[in-house]
Amino acid sequence: MPDRSEIAYFGAGPAPLPTPVLEEASQVLLNYNNTGIGLTELSHRSPEANAILSHTQTGLRRLLDIPDSDGPDGYQILFLQGGGSGQFSAVVYHLISVWIGELAKTKQQGLDAEVAKMRLDYLVTGSWSLKASQEAARLIGPEHVNIVTDARKARDDGKFGSIPSRDTWKPTPHKDDVALTYYCDNETVDGVEFPTAPSGPNLVADMSSNFLSRPVDVRAHAAIFGGAQKNVGTTGITIAIISNRLLPPHATLAEPQLLRKLHLPNGPIVLDYPTISKNNSLYNTLPIFDVWIAGQVMQRLLDQSPDTNTPRITAQQATSNHKSTLLYGVLDTYPETYTVVPDASVRSRMNLCFRIRGGDSAAEQAFLKGATQRGLLGLKGHRSVGGIRASNYNAVPVEAVEKLAKYLTDFAREQ
Amino acid sequence: MPDRSEIAYFGAGPAPLPTPVLEEASQVLLNYNNTGIGLTELSHRSPEANAILSHTQTGLRRLLDIPDSDGPDGYQILFLQGGGSGQFSAVVYHLISVWIGELAKTKQQGLDAEVAKMRLDYLVTGSWSLKASQEAARLIGPEHVNIVTDARKARDDGKFGSIPSRDTWKPTPHKDDVALTYYCDNETVDGVEFPTAPSGPNLVADMSSNFLSRPVDVRAHAAIFGGAQKNVGTTGITIAIISNRLLPPHATLAEPQLLRKLHLPNGPIVLDYPTISKNNSLYNTLPIFDVWIAGQVMQRLLDQSPDTNTPRITAQQATSNHKSTLLYGVLDTYPETYTVVPDASVRSRMNLCFRIRGGDSAAEQAFLKGATQRGLLGLKGHRSVGGIRASNYNAVPVEAVEKLAKYLTDFAREQ
Ligand SMILES: Cc1ncc(COP(=O)(O)O)c(C=O)c1O
Ligand SMILES: Cc1ncc(COP(=O)(O)O)c(C=O)c1O
Repeated sequence: MPDRSEIAYFGAGPAPLPTPVLEEASQVLLNYNNTGIGLTELSHRSPEANAILSHTQTGLRRLLDIPDSDGPDGYQILFLQGGGSGQFSAVVYHLISVWIGELAKTKQQGLDAEVAKMRLDYLVTGSWSLKASQEAARLIGPEHVNIVTDARKARDDGKFGSIPSRDTWKPTPHKDDVALTYYCDNETVDGVEFPTAPSGPNLVADMSSNFLSRPVDVRAHAAIFGGAQKNVGTTGITIAIISNRLLPPHATLAEPQLLRKLHLPNGPIVLDYPTISKNNSLYNTLPIFDVWIAGQVMQRLLDQSPDTNTPRITAQQATSNHKSTLLYGVLDTYPETYTVVPDASVRSRMNLCFRIRGGDSAAEQAFLKGATQRGLLGLKGHRSVGGIRASNYNAVPVEAVEKLAKYLTDFAREQ
Repeated sequence: MPDRSEIAYFGAGPAPLPTPVLEEASQVLLNYNNTGIGLTELSHRSPEANAILSHTQTGLRRLLDIPDSDGPDGYQILFLQGGGSGQFSAVVYHLISVWIGELAKTKQQGLDAEVAKMRLDYLVTGSWSLKASQEAARLIGPEHVNIVTDARKARDDGKFGSIPSRDTWKPTPHKDDVALTYYCDNETVDGVEFPTAPSGPNLVADMSSNFLSRPVDVRAHAAIFGGAQKNVGTTGITIAIISNRLLPPHATLAEPQLLRKLHLPNGPIVLDYPTISKNNSLYNTLPIFDVWIAGQVMQRLLDQSPDTNTPRITAQQATSNHKSTLLYGVLDTYPETYTVVPDASVRSRMNLCFRIRGGDSAAEQAFLKGATQRGLLGLKGHRSVGGIRASNYNAVPVEAVEKLAKYLTDFAREQ
């Protein structure tokens, strides 16, 4: 009958949440702010819900220094449902609508020929960006999808684990043809993280698994998204940060019938950024409880960082770096026992993927069994790649990481 | 500083939840089933999550007598994100894919001409079915959408509040042209509920606001859906019950490129029923906490109905009818004060919409103010129609309804 305090949980997502946040959550479930009504019961259009929404948006702006303005340089913070996977589709629907809308402003005739040139540029550096590129191909046709780089081709084992050097990338030659440039900042399954962001026209980033772990140059992006269930909160909301340049009145969108005419799809209204933005994320019922949790998590990060300079996320970044450095340090100390999967230069600070004795399954089983006995849980690698994965999300305490480091050391010494 | 017990909440959704369910929820948030891990933190692929999923599915099957088989007569129970609004789109994407897929089996040439005949039949009986029909028109073009009936035309005030008699309906003449027949079983905004289900090819029902309040002839439907946040649970999951006849291997779906060729849209993978079904609702991260809540709510309904005959929802139906009869009884006793908005024959048991003194705004304000003083909350009508709306969802206790009935009487007598 273990208590929370006896368990160190390294699952890849959903991820741990700070115990004080969960303790308060268990109160507000029954009675929010002395309304006599629980937070999941309260209307998403109540003043309380509006205050929660705005508190969470403000927290995120401060943490990541997100420009707040109605002008073209500003960014909207949206909450949607459907997870990171829903955003794989949402960014495609939206960015092609922007691309076609701009094109239609100057051209009325021969649009078909122009549309044939439209390209979505994908940097495929792991399982999640691969999935995103496949979704784009399914929605609009593979002929519009350009794989700028496929990281599997850069390694002898044909597996993900590297980020090929930029001089090998093949972006679409004409920038104007590019509706979006897509990358996944941290590949959760493969343990690969971009040391610094790539660049390209209409840059879109999936930050599902390293959101709020380091500063981000928001201004270099057209859109940034991430499911909340790792560093930010609970499964149920997805955060999207969208440049005003991609939204009316700063962008002209294609009409639905024009998209149909050009054999391009219309997305569902619940994933439509202009609609969600116009309604401040309240187009339809929003899980306010999940927004509240995210807001509490953000408030704790802000409180840890009393310095009022932005971005305020640097305090958490230091902690994340400290924890991952500690673990990689142990792994590197025992190269006969542990092999880190990704190349040294692109190791993820969030998902540490390694094999034991070159992938010996008996040894990996033994490792996991010993871990469980010590209350170190959630360490099994993704079912598609196997091995061990220790996820080092924000709410994993330093003490838990120290416990794991000790176990890694003990296990290696016993070999 | 009101306690839950002092508040009677009649909000239209999110809705109240049974206090014992919330009390248990507040425990499992911190430590689920003595795992030492909270339920929002646990992996959606853990054995615990699988058990929750299957418990909730089984509960729903028993309550609504949903056929359980892999054959064409069986139905799948899916959990999705995106709310009822997401399903407005999902049913369109899917049913057109089935319609085109079947067509393409026999025809290779001249598909364009055939597709021009495809129709989606909508029964527009209130704000939500209207919205659903508008979404279909946006996605596939208004030329494919046939409004079988528009209930506003049947009333002198030009407003929703009736269900026109069936002999006035104009369904698409050729049944084979119909990809779906859509209705909203209970119109939350307008207080209109179908006394009995309509019929038509590939019948699709939105039961967001009267799910689990009476038996449903599931076998007469192609698909039934509803957001969980009213009678079933919390905002975050949407339930879809889909006939196996619409899923592989019993149905042939159109390939993505064929849909593109025919100027028809591909929907996002997160709303794709075949994908979600194949993965038993675990294609991507599912908010298991919300599924657990729904399972607990269902378990309580089953426990209230020890009779093992199916459908087990009849016990709740009796309670719902009792509560709504009580309230309509009072409203009808004071016709000078209260006017029920919908026609008597289609009054919703779930959302009781009425005006005070013919819509006198001072009187309605006074009513709401007095209600608040007595701890009767959530009674304001939808912003688009005004007036008063008392939502009588499953978790609204009989005592709360009795309190409201008393206030309705007192208020009328004071006039
Ligand atoms: C980097 C990344 N992107 C996208 C996803 C998909 O998110 P979801 O399961 O919420 O759809 C995940 C899930 O783990 C992820 O790690
Ligand atoms: C009947 C009906 N359908 C659909 C919806 C939309 O649901 P959601 O807000 O979850 O998208 C609602 C919401 O109240 C509803 O009452």
